[in-house]
Amino acid sequence: MTSFAIVGHLARTNGDFSLNDLPGAGRMDVLCRCVNTSLFLSHDLRRDVECSLVLLGEPKAPKTVLFRGNGLCSLSPDERSAGALIKKALSIPCGSEFREAAPGVFVRNGGLERLLAEQAFAVLDENGTDIRTVQAMPGAFLLSDHQNFTEAEEALIKDASRYSVGPACLHADHTITVLSNEIDRRKKGWK
Amino acid sequence: MTSFAIVGHLARTNGDFSLNDLPGAGRMDVLCRCVNTSLFLSHDLRRDVECSLVLLGEPKAPKTVLFRGNGLCSLSPDERSAGALIKKALSIPCGSEFREAAPGVFVRNGGLERLLAEQAFAVLDENGTDIRTVQAMPGAFLLSDHQNFTEAEEALIKDASRYSVGPACLHADHTITVLSNEIDRRKKGWK
Repeated sequence: MTSFAIVGHLARTNGDFSLNDLPGAGRMDVLCRCVNTSLFLSHDLRRDVECSLVLLGEPKAPKTVLFRGNGLCSLSPDERSAGALIKKALSIPCGSEFREAAPGVFVRNGGLERLLAEQAFAVLDENGTDIRTVQAMPGAFLLSDHQNFTEAEEALIKDASRYSVGPACLHADHTITVLSNEIDRRKKGWK
Repeated sequence: MTSFAIVGHLARTNGDFSLNDLPGAGRMDVLCRCVNTSLFLSHDLRRDVECSLVLLGEPKAPKTVLFRGNGLCSLSPDERSAGALIKKALSIPCGSEFREAAPGVFVRNGGLERLLAEQAFAVLDENGTDIRTVQAMPGAFLLSDHQNFTEAEEALIKDASRYSVGPACLHADHTITVLSNEIDRRKKGWK
């Protein structure tokens, strides 16, 4: 099982946004692409992957939307498809425990602090250790959206391992693709 | 300079499609994501990259839409943004030579045969040579959308070098991300 978590610093936390303007919903487009790159293979889904979106925008932050690869049945690769499932999850009442909004899609109140208390995440950081040189691949990776982690977030992850995927500074979704490729290669004995 | 070319077997060849249904425009969403992954860095564009979309759907196939990183000025990372520029390019009359439809975005009649006559492309193929083992990276890569290359296309590329990015079968846009990462690493001396 591999987990990816992405912090959406401005991402809307109710379902009142338009699928025709995902960037306008606090850059929800970034998070939709992260869902895609976490979960899609060609003509298949990565059933052993989970993707958590930590949403910190107005009006009901923090919320977490979780996509579980082993339960999904109505996700398509386009941004609107992931956006529609996020919108649906944010449109139902939720409490402190995950509630299923659609097959494989869950929502709860709570954000990064709770997520980090539940699981150890490695952090993606352009100054981190080259992921190709790591002996044992971490099972969970935390990334930020188009904004850097805040000081308060950095305090929460100050003890985390930090990894880089290469010399160029990439979008979060592209970083997830490179990480998944590294994991795929190691599972199959490719160097 | 790196070139990516993606064959869109069903992608619309006029501008009458809706940005609210890019999958319905012959899986134009696939091509929009390929534009994104070819050209975007975090908070920057890859100015030394070109991305050609070979569009083979109704009603005026074949057409080629070219995105040049060094000329672009109005591309955002979301699918609709690339889709809007493709739609604009397909909405103007064009001939056999590239015509600029927006800064850095060009369109012409003609498809894969002409593109291959102008430049040698390496082909992405799950049975190809592992890209990490290649001594000299190719400068141009050809990929297919959600469909395999047709027999006629395979005949055109029968002598091309063939490369794989890993053991999993990936979407074209994810493959481009992995290729770009390998190119980035080699340029900066990362192993």
